[in-house]
Amino acid sequence: MKSDIQIAQAAEMKEIREIAADLGLDESDLELYGKYKAKIKLTALKREYKKSAGKLVLVTAITPTPAGEGKTTTTVGLGQALNRLGKKAVIAIREPSLGPTMGIKGGAAGGGYAQVVPMEDINLHFTGDIHAIGVAHNLLAAAIDNHIKQGNELRIDPTKITFKRVVDMNDRALRETVIGLGGSKNGQPREDGFQITVASEVMAILCLANDLMELKEKLGKIVIGYNYNGESVTAADLNVAGAMTALLKDAIKPNLVQTLENTPAFIHGGPFANIAHGCNSIMATKLALGLGEIAVTEAGFGADLGAEKFYNIKSRFANLNPDAAVLVATIRALKMHGGVELAELEQENLAALEKGISNLEKHLENMAKFGVPVVVAINKFPTDSEAEINLVRKKCEKIGVEVALSEVWEHGGQGGEELAKAVIKLLENKKSKFKFLYNVEQPIKDKISKIAREIYGAVGVNYSEKALQQIKQYQKQGYNNLPICMAKTQSSISDNPALKGRPSGFKISVKSINLSAGAGFLVVMTGPVLTMPGLPKTPAAEAIDIDENGKISGLF
Amino acid sequence: MKSDIQIAQAAEMKEIREIAADLGLDESDLELYGKYKAKIKLTALKREYKKSAGKLVLVTAITPTPAGEGKTTTTVGLGQALNRLGKKAVIAIREPSLGPTMGIKGGAAGGGYAQVVPMEDINLHFTGDIHAIGVAHNLLAAAIDNHIKQGNELRIDPTKITFKRVVDMNDRALRETVIGLGGSKNGQPREDGFQITVASEVMAILCLANDLMELKEKLGKIVIGYNYNGESVTAADLNVAGAMTALLKDAIKPNLVQTLENTPAFIHGGPFANIAHGCNSIMATKLALGLGEIAVTEAGFGADLGAEKFYNIKSRFANLNPDAAVLVATIRALKMHGGVELAELEQENLAALEKGISNLEKHLENMAKFGVPVVVAINKFPTDSEAEINLVRKKCEKIGVEVALSEVWEHGGQGGEELAKAVIKLLENKKSKFKFLYNVEQPIKDKISKIAREIYGAVGVNYSEKALQQIKQYQKQGYNNLPICMAKTQSSISDNPALKGRPSGFKISVKSINLSAGAGFLVVMTGPVLTMPGLPKTPAAEAIDIDENGKISGLF
Repeated sequence: MKSDIQIAQAAEMKEIREIAADLGLDESDLELYGKYKAKIKLTALKREYKKSAGKLVLVTAITPTPAGEGKTTTTVGLGQALNRLGKKAVIAIREPSLGPTMGIKGGAAGGGYAQVVPMEDINLHFTGDIHAIGVAHNLLAAAIDNHIKQGNELRIDPTKITFKRVVDMNDRALRETVIGLGGSKNGQPREDGFQITVASEVMAILCLANDLMELKEKLGKIVIGYNYNGESVTAADLNVAGAMTALLKDAIKPNLVQTLENTPAFIHGGPFANIAHGCNSIMATKLALGLGEIAVTEAGFGADLGAEKFYNIKSRFANLNPDAAVLVATIRALKMHGGVELAELEQENLAALEKGISNLEKHLENMAKFGVPVVVAINKFPTDSEAEINLVRKKCEKIGVEVALSEVWEHGGQGGEELAKAVIKLLENKKSKFKFLYNVEQPIKDKISKIAREIYGAVGVNYSEKALQQIKQYQKQGYNNLPICMAKTQSSISDNPALKGRPSGFKISVKSINLSAGAGFLVVMTGPVLTMPGLPKTPAAEAIDIDENGKISGLF
Repeated sequence: MKSDIQIAQAAEMKEIREIAADLGLDESDLELYGKYKAKIKLTALKREYKKSAGKLVLVTAITPTPAGEGKTTTTVGLGQALNRLGKKAVIAIREPSLGPTMGIKGGAAGGGYAQVVPMEDINLHFTGDIHAIGVAHNLLAAAIDNHIKQGNELRIDPTKITFKRVVDMNDRALRETVIGLGGSKNGQPREDGFQITVASEVMAILCLANDLMELKEKLGKIVIGYNYNGESVTAADLNVAGAMTALLKDAIKPNLVQTLENTPAFIHGGPFANIAHGCNSIMATKLALGLGEIAVTEAGFGADLGAEKFYNIKSRFANLNPDAAVLVATIRALKMHGGVELAELEQENLAALEKGISNLEKHLENMAKFGVPVVVAINKFPTDSEAEINLVRKKCEKIGVEVALSEVWEHGGQGGEELAKAVIKLLENKKSKFKFLYNVEQPIKDKISKIAREIYGAVGVNYSEKALQQIKQYQKQGYNNLPICMAKTQSSISDNPALKGRPSGFKISVKSINLSAGAGFLVVMTGPVLTMPGLPKTPAAEAIDIDENGKISGLF
């Protein structure tokens, strides 16, 4: 089989004007970025939002192996397959971060014959949204230290600044720094650090804003730290929310590209799935709903994190009504949940598989709590045996959930037809009774407890002293009525990555709770989260090259 | 008079496709960035380079006041005026840096009725080139610390790393930092610092590369520091030149926009004018020469720095033959050189003016040494008296140099017709006998001495111990045959900003000499250069805003 970049470079792309025209967009709705990428103007957004007639399908997954379950690939392939079956499907997915492209894994725009293109562009800068986010973020960061140096009228406590700087690179040396050295001309020395740009709260905000003015309002609410009285200081206090929004004037517009099979795809925004909600922008999803019969979108990590946040955070802020969900599972991951070591996942093991299906069952039970009908997609690998696939099919039948084989990586849209048919059937026959898991007016601890008990299956929640203090503080400051954004391992439904399958009898440990007042949620930390990755011994960058004709190689 | 942004927003822009078509470019030569910006593909560059039939006009200036002499405005206005007179003029200028836009002065794309548009886009991200440069730069920076952490095979001395990180923001707190804190998982702690992105050597390289492969070659030659044996370590040693070039795959392509009067303008690259050469890209200049009858371009700072580097560095690397130069002067600056305080420049003062013309005379003598014919442009201010203007005219007549009034700020192209006619006359009647001031094979000290004595009028050069040691080192390492890039104040022809007019009897002090092996020059430091600006007490960002229709205000 060819590599991803080889497949992508052989794609027969249509001009993006043509893709847009097929969607009913006028050329005047577009801002072209070359021949194969376009941003959609705000005027078109407003117009299309009003329609919002499409069905919304969320692609989520069971608890994944370290390689991932193939959510993006399934999302892209499902979109392709739906189009093959005559449905006007529109895809909405996240934008890859440049840092990781240079680090371990290369590109992130689907895989095999289920990719979005132009793949090199999407993985390298794309339309510049992440860079714009980085600059808007760093403007605020610079304004903080400048304010302190220029007299500190707001009485910001330099030891209580929570807002770090960002850079779009895997650069571990920047995780913990001291800045402001060199004497008073350079300001006040203090401890600081850098996150990768996609971990910025500005990214989460961009993805949770319904329009430009809401973006500005949310940016203004970012809490950068505290003054000497312990009161929060915001971006609005520093008078830079307007300039930050101006810097995001183009980044806010969803980007239209296409799949290998010319299915329209919006790629817009890509926040972290632990310290943020892990979904593409509300605007892209709404636009897909306005323009398509079926909008296919995804959420990061397993369903305990991704789907839970898609429902409780994104759908709440955007007023979405998800119609169906696809729960992606691999035979490999199910065997892992049955106790098989990673190195042995390629061997048939029906006993382990049967045991590991407990993980799938738990996720299905969880999904039912939101009232959204589900179909299971088995993302097929060459090493899966027929007996294994049949076992999963039978188990699903017994549970009473539709199951479909997905071979989109190998066969593109054609390999997704079984899944597409199952999705169509679900949309036609089962009405979604979507509801939130909790009410935002509930006390913070009740909301956390609800997620821990009902989604994770925990028997309770342990809070650190720090977390308890923070809860009190947020209540006092009026930040209690926010939804919860759990920062938890994706390797287990519990907060212990070692617990596979369907863990039980455990308690969730809450170490601390961070405030993302701009994005509009409380981030509940169950353990350390690395917001600045490092490069491996041999970075992926070393293999990347470009020839005299501008053709790129070594991007995987 | 309206503000710059008001004038810009009222512009009647043509579609960039139309501007390109008028230049003889095919639509397939373009990569559109919205309706009013386009990048020119590499294939078109190669084709157009071969023509290079146009005349090359450099706009430079006398030693400026702190407000600047108006070079960019004159360049834009001259282009507009030439077009009004039926000449196919193409402008090539530098790209504004985003940091300063948020800091003191707002936008930088000409002024008044001599601007390039869309002004907001050009000042905010534009086509993303500076962001791409920043990421390419920071990839190399991350690779350095990662290499050290992963075993340091190249034996890089962490105390001898000269390559800093960059961010596109005025952020003085990042000038001097300590990175790699937090234990061995985060690498080796060391002193580091950030420059603003436009100060990156990658920016200088992008602007001095003739094509994509030369870009890669030059990036590979960047010296990031030294190993424990004192030998230089390069980007090529770290295997990231290919990935850096891939990251610059679009940034290398010149950007086409238009002036308020629809004159085509390439805006591409914007390196510092002290630690780098301060000119737009070679590629943009060559493209302007290939497509236009007259290419009008500029160089940063006064002629002692800007023109000298344009001739000795850029023209050398690009094999250019400048045909004429415009030396911009303001009555205000000439009075300043005659001893008038900044606060009193608006009052008529013929005696001071006469005295201050010595500065203009020295620059004219300097220009003659390069063999390029010159016309003086008086950039008129409302406070200039008729008597003052007549005095300058008479003086220039006596010297034997053409002089023209320029009122492009107030009247656009129409206000530049006198200047345009003078330029056309010069091009038709005086043949350029362009030559370099020095030969790169000369010893380092000889090259520096030549510039100091012949251009600055110094009686000699004093070297610090450090500089002398560095000269020895560079000779030993084979970096002696490079052109010289002087880092000197722009406020005086000497290296002492207090010496106005035509200083004499002074010696130039060389403090240190930095190697930009990738860009291909030695940077001779005559004093400290700030490569990371700070924000003022009330940053310009505080005034910038955007409304619900995406209209930006407060950008000046």
